Amino acid sequence: MKFVRFRAGGTARYGILEDRRVTEIRGSIYGRYQRTRRSYALSRVRLLPPCEPTKIVAAGLTYREHAAEFGHPVPEEPIIFLKPLTALIGPGDRIVYPAISQRVDYEAELAIVMKRKGRNIPRGQALRYVLGYTCHNDVTARDIQKKDGQWTRGKSFDTFAPLGPCIATDLDPHRVRIEARVNGEVRQSFKSDQLIFDVPTLVAFISQVMTLYPGDVIATGTPPGVGPLKRGDVVEVEVEGIGVLRNRVV
Amino acid sequence: MKFVRFRAGGTARYGILEDRRVTEIRGSIYGRYQRTRRSYALSRVRLLPPCEPTKIVAAGLTYREHAAEFGHPVPEEPIIFLKPLTALIGPGDRIVYPAISQRVDYEAELAIVMKRKGRNIPRGQALRYVLGYTCHNDVTARDIQKKDGQWTRGKSFDTFAPLGPCIATDLDPHRVRIEARVNGEVRQSFKSDQLIFDVPTLVAFISQVMTLYPGDVIATGTPPGVGPLKRGDVVEVEVEGIGVLRNRVV
Repeated sequence: MKFVRFRAGGTARYGILEDRRVTEIRGSIYGRYQRTRRSYALSRVRLLPPCEPTKIVAAGLTYREHAAEFGHPVPEEPIIFLKPLTALIGPGDRIVYPAISQRVDYEAELAIVMKRKGRNIPRGQALRYVLGYTCHNDVTARDIQKKDGQWTRGKSFDTFAPLGPCIATDLDPHRVRIEARVNGEVRQSFKSDQLIFDVPTLVAFISQVMTLYPGDVIATGTPPGVGPLKRGDVVEVEVEGIGVLRNRVV
Repeated sequence: MKFVRFRAGGTARYGILEDRRVTEIRGSIYGRYQRTRRSYALSRVRLLPPCEPTKIVAAGLTYREHAAEFGHPVPEEPIIFLKPLTALIGPGDRIVYPAISQRVDYEAELAIVMKRKGRNIPRGQALRYVLGYTCHNDVTARDIQKKDGQWTRGKSFDTFAPLGPCIATDLDPHRVRIEARVNGEVRQSFKSDQLIFDVPTLVAFISQVMTLYPGDVIATGTPPGVGPLKRGDVVEVEVEGIGVLRNRVV
């Protein structure tokens, strides 16, 4: 199943995406829902971020080679940070290049969307708390990240958390290809089986710290090959089995 | 004026605190409101966190001596991090000592509560965007903070963001004494005029990165003297002109 959130008639709605058509649902994607009789051509609706998180938690240095790229040793445990909700944008929305940065990078990532509230979730039950997966671009002002040492500011600018286009529920998150493309050119291409910490480990680890709620997002970190964006670029994150998250930099 | 949020009859309400009585208001503390005829003895109501932020942004190493305590040079710019909303608790709520930490510290802080939505707020207009000030305890699992290097995890445990007891609107934030007490014993006592970055600077700096909303909280950082808590301790943060934020560690 692929869930989307979209705007129609001025209102945000949830739907199911099939064969390039969106069928509106009523109820909750986290619980019970029914299909309605309203459906729309995908090309005629405006997609929104596919969920409404109460927080976006991100894991860093989760791929061996990306850690190496930045001269970090392979961590024993995930390193986590938070992105503010003001950074969240959907497919087709614009990434705004901040005036105070001279180096803004894309980072293609697989993101987990939570289904159930949980705290101290056992690793063995973690997948029961997960609704599905979507694409995320962990846009980062690299110069500010390096200057601060702490990662938060460089990753927290408004528009720096593109998410979408849909939540794919039937996906093996450890066997998908993740790609970043800039103006159609492939810049990152990697299989998620190279993740140091798998999805159950990340969910269990983060829920030891903070209660997770339905719709909360966990970004699983980026593979090697991060690089700069410039104004006017179109950046795409594609995760096999989910779709393409496309945003223009302005 | 001192605004409080409190629970009465099973519902969260806003009120004005005067002479140890709370007068319920209707409307919004960020805009127009009227006093109602309902009032309560302060001793009879349960105070809640005094606002409902969409995010909690915190500045670190904002006092010269605290930076020195941790061997950091005085930063040229504030270092910021985020605390998740799941960490937020009110006066009298319990701080839960995490099983995975052996060193949890109090950090007494003055916190700013925003009044108006703003982005790229000019320093000279920043105070117009501020509703008032409250007390904050930036509870930190110091061992985890040090191990990770990144501060987020150690500061993000559920219950690690006590806030309250009220929002004081008529306060010069640069001329107040901030104290931390553990079981009645003073552990931090400092004047806010030692802040490296004043309130307008912090508001302007953070709003360059992210849009701030009414109720959003900016924690201004802690003075020297941070230290450990143990289970059973009662920790108090007092800011002159605001009140006492008291929480027990369990």
